[in-house]
Amino acid sequence: MSATVVDILGRMGRWEPDARGRLQQAAMELFVERGYERTTTADIAARAGLTERTYFRHFPDKREVLFDRTRRLDALVVEGIAAAPGDAAPLDALAVGLRAGSAMLDELGDGARARAAVIAGQGELRERELAKMSGLVATASAALLERGVAAAPALLAAEAGVAAFRVAFDRWVADPAGPALPAVLDAVLAELRGVVAPA
Amino acid sequence: MSATVVDILGRMGRWEPDARGRLQQAAMELFVERGYERTTTADIAARAGLTERTYFRHFPDKREVLFDRTRRLDALVVEGIAAAPGDAAPLDALAVGLRAGSAMLDELGDGARARAAVIAGQGELRERELAKMSGLVATASAALLERGVAAAPALLAAEAGVAAFRVAFDRWVADPAGPALPAVLDAVLAELRGVVAPA
Repeated sequence: MSATVVDILGRMGRWEPDARGRLQQAAMELFVERGYERTTTADIAARAGLTERTYFRHFPDKREVLFDRTRRLDALVVEGIAAAPGDAAPLDALAVGLRAGSAMLDELGDGARARAAVIAGQGELRERELAKMSGLVATASAALLERGVAAAPALLAAEAGVAAFRVAFDRWVADPAGPALPAVLDAVLAELRGVVAPA
Repeated sequence: MSATVVDILGRMGRWEPDARGRLQQAAMELFVERGYERTTTADIAARAGLTERTYFRHFPDKREVLFDRTRRLDALVVEGIAAAPGDAAPLDALAVGLRAGSAMLDELGDGARARAAVIAGQGELRERELAKMSGLVATASAALLERGVAAAPALLAAEAGVAAFRVAFDRWVADPAGPALPAVLDAVLAELRGVVAPA
């Protein structure tokens, strides 16, 4: 029955099996081959065997095709915070979520590293990445509020935890032969606690 | 003698007394009056009594006219870090610099708050602001390295300190009748130490 629906939608040109995934794959290939500036959304759609219109049904601009994963990261962090033991301190609860997100990125391995290299090489993409990390701070902070954490410590734990995550991610990207991302994250969190120790 | 130089450069149209400051003032006025989107660089130049060419001699794009102050903040932070007692822990050294920058912003008072409101209302400007804060992390981290701090704690102290600074700044913006920015910063740093206390 669902095959029929898929078939009808397919003939209507309104639904493409995993169009989103194919567009992301095509974009990464083209950004690596030609560079971000020399790739258009039409090129991406063509490489994916789709129309540019389909591209814009999935992504609002050329940058966003690289940032779909951020939504998954956000969701894993929120779930982890909610699942943390009730008596966990704010930063410990966030660490549960960040570890789940780190495990997901670690599994992507070279794909995550290739994406990071594309972003690092382009100013517009770096700005969008910073905006996404700022969004993750807001999301994590809201999830901590849900646990009954007060506004100020929720925001500060979110800022500190996401900063540790970014530092850990950069360290992991730079060292493909090194430890898995969740282990790097735990090491960075321990270092952060040392650096920010009460005076 | 210098009056003659000023006179000659003035007639050559290549030098305008405090053109930079006039352009910044004009931009802030227009952004508040009409909004950022409905203001052009030509409008800003006209309001300042200057040509658009002069605008682009001072700023590379429409956004950057709002971010000149960031360079002063960066410089104050670097100076403060260098001037901190030799035995100060990394985050304490950075706090000296951030306090100096906070005092400068506090003196600007309503001007700094008006600028923050313009930036908060516009996505492109928020992204540029995040990029500037990311630049401040890099600058502060480098200044800590200069003091002989190792790379990892230098970066983590810079991330944590700049996060505290941003939280303090937002809190100060939201409460014009509240304490001065350096005092808010010290309060936030103390809260951060509590939240990131060693487990």
